[in-house]
Amino acid sequence: MNRQKIANIIDRKSRSDWMCTAYDWFMVLTILVSLLPLMFMGTYKVFWFTEMASTLVFIIDYLLRWGTADLRSNNRKIAFLFYPFSFMAIIDLLSILPAVTLLNPAFKLFRFTRLLRLTRVLKMFGISSKVRLFMSILYKERQVLSSVLVLALLYIFVTALILFNVEPHINPYTGQPTFRSFFDALYWATVTLTTVGYGDMCPVTDVGRFVSMLSSLFGIAVIALPSGVITARYLDELRKEKD
Amino acid sequence: MNRQKIANIIDRKSRSDWMCTAYDWFMVLTILVSLLPLMFMGTYKVFWFTEMASTLVFIIDYLLRWGTADLRSNNRKIAFLFYPFSFMAIIDLLSILPAVTLLNPAFKLFRFTRLLRLTRVLKMFGISSKVRLFMSILYKERQVLSSVLVLALLYIFVTALILFNVEPHINPYTGQPTFRSFFDALYWATVTLTTVGYGDMCPVTDVGRFVSMLSSLFGIAVIALPSGVITARYLDELRKEKD
Amino acid sequence: MNRQKIANIIDRKSRSDWMCTAYDWFMVLTILVSLLPLMFMGTYKVFWFTEMASTLVFIIDYLLRWGTADLRSNNRKIAFLFYPFSFMAIIDLLSILPAVTLLNPAFKLFRFTRLLRLTRVLKMFGISSKVRLFMSILYKERQVLSSVLVLALLYIFVTALILFNVEPHINPYTGQPTFRSFFDALYWATVTLTTVGYGDMCPVTDVGRFVSMLSSLFGIAVIALPSGVITARYLDELRKEKD
Amino acid sequence: MNRQKIANIIDRKSRSDWMCTAYDWFMVLTILVSLLPLMFMGTYKVFWFTEMASTLVFIIDYLLRWGTADLRSNNRKIAFLFYPFSFMAIIDLLSILPAVTLLNPAFKLFRFTRLLRLTRVLKMFGISSKVRLFMSILYKERQVLSSVLVLALLYIFVTALILFNVEPHINPYTGQPTFRSFFDALYWATVTLTTVGYGDMCPVTDVGRFVSMLSSLFGIAVIALPSGVITARYLDELRKEKD
Repeated sequence: MNRQKIANIIDRKSRSDWMCTAYDWFMVLTILVSLLPLMFMGTYKVFWFTEMASTLVFIIDYLLRWGTADLRSNNRKIAFLFYPFSFMAIIDLLSILPAVTLLNPAFKLFRFTRLLRLTRVLKMFGISSKVRLFMSILYKERQVLSSVLVLALLYIFVTALILFNVEPHINPYTGQPTFRSFFDALYWATVTLTTVGYGDMCPVTDVGRFVSMLSSLFGIAVIALPSGVITARYLDELRKEKD
Repeated sequence: MNRQKIANIIDRKSRSDWMCTAYDWFMVLTILVSLLPLMFMGTYKVFWFTEMASTLVFIIDYLLRWGTADLRSNNRKIAFLFYPFSFMAIIDLLSILPAVTLLNPAFKLFRFTRLLRLTRVLKMFGISSKVRLFMSILYKERQVLSSVLVLALLYIFVTALILFNVEPHINPYTGQPTFRSFFDALYWATVTLTTVGYGDMCPVTDVGRFVSMLSSLFGIAVIALPSGVITARYLDELRKEKD
Repeated sequence: MNRQKIANIIDRKSRSDWMCTAYDWFMVLTILVSLLPLMFMGTYKVFWFTEMASTLVFIIDYLLRWGTADLRSNNRKIAFLFYPFSFMAIIDLLSILPAVTLLNPAFKLFRFTRLLRLTRVLKMFGISSKVRLFMSILYKERQVLSSVLVLALLYIFVTALILFNVEPHINPYTGQPTFRSFFDALYWATVTLTTVGYGDMCPVTDVGRFVSMLSSLFGIAVIALPSGVITARYLDELRKEKD
Repeated sequence: MNRQKIANIIDRKSRSDWMCTAYDWFMVLTILVSLLPLMFMGTYKVFWFTEMASTLVFIIDYLLRWGTADLRSNNRKIAFLFYPFSFMAIIDLLSILPAVTLLNPAFKLFRFTRLLRLTRVLKMFGISSKVRLFMSILYKERQVLSSVLVLALLYIFVTALILFNVEPHINPYTGQPTFRSFFDALYWATVTLTTVGYGDMCPVTDVGRFVSMLSSLFGIAVIALPSGVITARYLDELRKEKD
C-alpha cells in the first residue's frame, strides 16, 4: 500500500473502491463514538476508552492527510508546510483537542468542535453538490429572501416590544411569571410567527392575543413568500437544464 | 357461481360488477371489525365474537384466493404451489394469525399485522395509481429531496446535541425534569423543526431558546424547499401530459 | 317604490344602486345581531329585544322575497307556489325559527341555523365567483387531492391506533390521564400531522415519541403535496386566461 | 460642509459616500437606544441619559431635514413652509414627543411612536423596493387573496361560535376556566387554523375536538392557497422580466 493509494482513499478520489467507502463510514462511526459522552447525562467509565480510541483515529487521520499533502497539490514539497494552516486541517486539529477532557471532564463542551467534522460527512453522501444548488438558488434570490427575512425580524422585534409592554409580569391565571426579559418576548414572537407555538408563554391580555392572531396570520405569508420564490427559481433552473 | 367469477370478484377485474364493489366494502368492514379490540381500553365479551367472525372471513378469503390462484396466472396448475409464498398471501396469512388472542388476550398487539391488509383498501379506492404518480415525482427528485432530508436530520441531531448539553436537567420554573435522555432531545428538535411545537418540553436557558428560534426559522426553509421541488416537478408532469 | 325595484334591491341586480349595498350591509348587521346571544355566556335582558328586532327583519325579508318571486322567474305566477320550497327560501325560514327561544332560552343552539344565511354574505362580497374558481381547481385535481386526503386519513388512523396501544393510560410524569378513548388518539394524530401540536396530549413512551417524529416529518409532505398541486393548476389557469 | 452635502447625506442620495452609510447606521442605533426603556421591566437611572441623548439626536435630525427642505424640492423656498406637514416630518416629530417621559415615566408607551421611524430603516436596507414588488404581487392577486382572507375570517368566526357554545366553561380535567369570552374563542380559532396551536386553550368535548380536527386540516388549504397564488404570480413576474 503506497502513499498514492492512501491519498486516494482519504480524498474520496476513487469512489468505486470499496476501501474508500469503508474509510468514510468508519470515520462517521468514529465521530459518533467521539460524541457519545455528549449524549448521556452521567459520566461512565467506558467513555474514557471511546475517547481514547476516537482521538487515536483522529490523530492517525490527521497524520495521514498531512503525510500525503504533497500528492494533493501536484507533488510540490512545500504543501507539507502549508497544510496545517488550511481550513479543513484546522477543523481536524480542533477535533483532536477535546481529548484534554480525559484529564478533566469539565471540558466536555469542547467536543462540539467535532461537529465541524460532519461537513466531511456531507461530502461523503454527495450532498455538498445539492447544497451548492440550494445555495445558488438562495444566492440568485438573495435580495428577495433577505428582504423577507429582515421584514420578519423587524416584525418579530415590533411584536415582542408590544407584548413585553402590554402583558402583565405575572400570569393572573397560573400565578407563573410570563416574560422574564425582553429576550423571552423575542423568543415568544419568533415561535408565534413561525407557527411553532410551544405554549410555554402565552398572551393573557386581549391586546396581546390580538397581536398573536395577527402574527399567526402574517406567519402564513412569511411561509408562503419564500416558498413561492424558491419554487419559481427552482422551476427556472429545471427548465434551463432541459434546454 | 363458477370459479372464474369468484376470481373476478376477488381480483377486482370486473369493477362495473356490483358484487365486486360489495365484496371490497365487506372486506374493509371486516378489517375494521377485526381491529375493534385495539380501539378500546378494556376487553369486552363481544370482542370474542367479532374476532371469531372476522378471522372466519379472513380464512375463507384466503382459501378462495388460493383456490383460484391458477386462474390468475394463465391456468398453470403450479400456481397453487407458489401462491402461499407470494407477498400478498403472506400478508393475508399474517392477518389470520392474531386469532390466537382468542386463547390469550395478551397477544393483543399481534393484530397490528392486519393493518397491512389496508394496502388492499388503497387499491380499491384507485389510490395506488396516484401513489405511483407521487412516487415517480419523489423518485425523479430523489437526490434533491434526500439531500433536504439528510440536512434536516443532521440539523436535528446537532440542535438536539446542543440543547441536551446546555439545558438544566430540572426545569427551574416548574421543578419538572426536562430532557430525560438524548432521545428526548431528538424528539424535541424534530418537533421544533417541523413547527409542530407541542410544548411538553421547552428550552429554559437563553442559549436553548436562541437555538429554538433559529430552528423554527430554519423550519420554514425545510417546508419551503420540498414544496418548491414537488411543485416544479408536478407542473412539469402536467405539461408533459398535455403535449 | 314598485315591486320591480324591491326585487332588484333584494336580488343584488343593480349593484351600482346605493340602496342595494345598504340593504346588504343591513342584513349582515342583522345576522350578527341575531347571533349576539351565542357570543355571551349569560343571558341578558337586552337579547330579548335584539331577538325580536332581528326576527322581524328576517320575516319582512322572507315576505319581500316571496312577494317578488314571480319577477325573478319571468313573471310566471306559479313561482309564488314553488318559492317556499327553494333551497334559499328554506334557509331563510330556518333563520326565523330560532325565535322560539323567546319562549324558552334552552333552544339557544337553534340559532346556528342562522349561520347558513352567511352564504348570502359571500355573494355580497363577490367572493362566490372566487370560491367557484377554487372549486374548479379542486375539481380538476380532485383525484390527486382526494388521494392525498385518503392517505392522510389512513395515516392518522394507523398512528392513532399505534399510539393508543403503546401509550400508558396515565401520564407517569403528571399523573393525568392521556388518551381517554380512541377518538382522543385520532384527535392527537390529526393535530400532530397538521403540525398544529397543542400539547394537551403528548406521547410519553419512546415508541410514541418516535411515531410523533415520523408524523411531524410526514406532515410536511402532507402540506407540500396539496400546495404543489394547487400551485401548478392555478398557474395553468392563469396562462389559459392570457392566451 | 455646505447645506447641499448635508441634504445628500440625510437623503441617501450619494449611497457610495461612507458618511451617508455612517449616518444611517447612527440613526438606527439611536432609535434602538431610544427604545431601550421599553425592553426592560424596571426603570434605571441610565435611561434618563439615553432618553436625553436620543431625543437630542432626533431634534437635530429634524432641524437638519427642515433646514434643507428647499434643496429636496427644486430650491423652492416655499418648501420650508410645507415640510412640517409632510408625512415623514410628522413621524419625525412624533418620535421627539416621547421625551416628555423624562418628566413623568408613566408616559412610557408613547415611545411606540418611534417604531414608525423604522420605516426609514427599511429604505436604508433597500428593502422598500422589494416591499413594492411584494405589494404589486399582492395587488394583482388582491381579489383571490382577499377572498381567501374573508373565507378564513368567516371560518374562524363560525368555529369560534361553535366552540364557545359546545365547550364547558370549566375544563373538567384541570378545573381551569376555558373560554372566558367570545374573544378568547376567536383567539383559539385563529391559533388553530394557522396551525400555531399554543395549547393554552384546548377543546375538551368530542364535538369541540372534531371541529379542531377539521380546522387543522382546513388550515393546510389556507396555507396552500395563498402560497400557490403568490408562487404563480411571482413566476409570471420573473418571466416578464426576462422577455
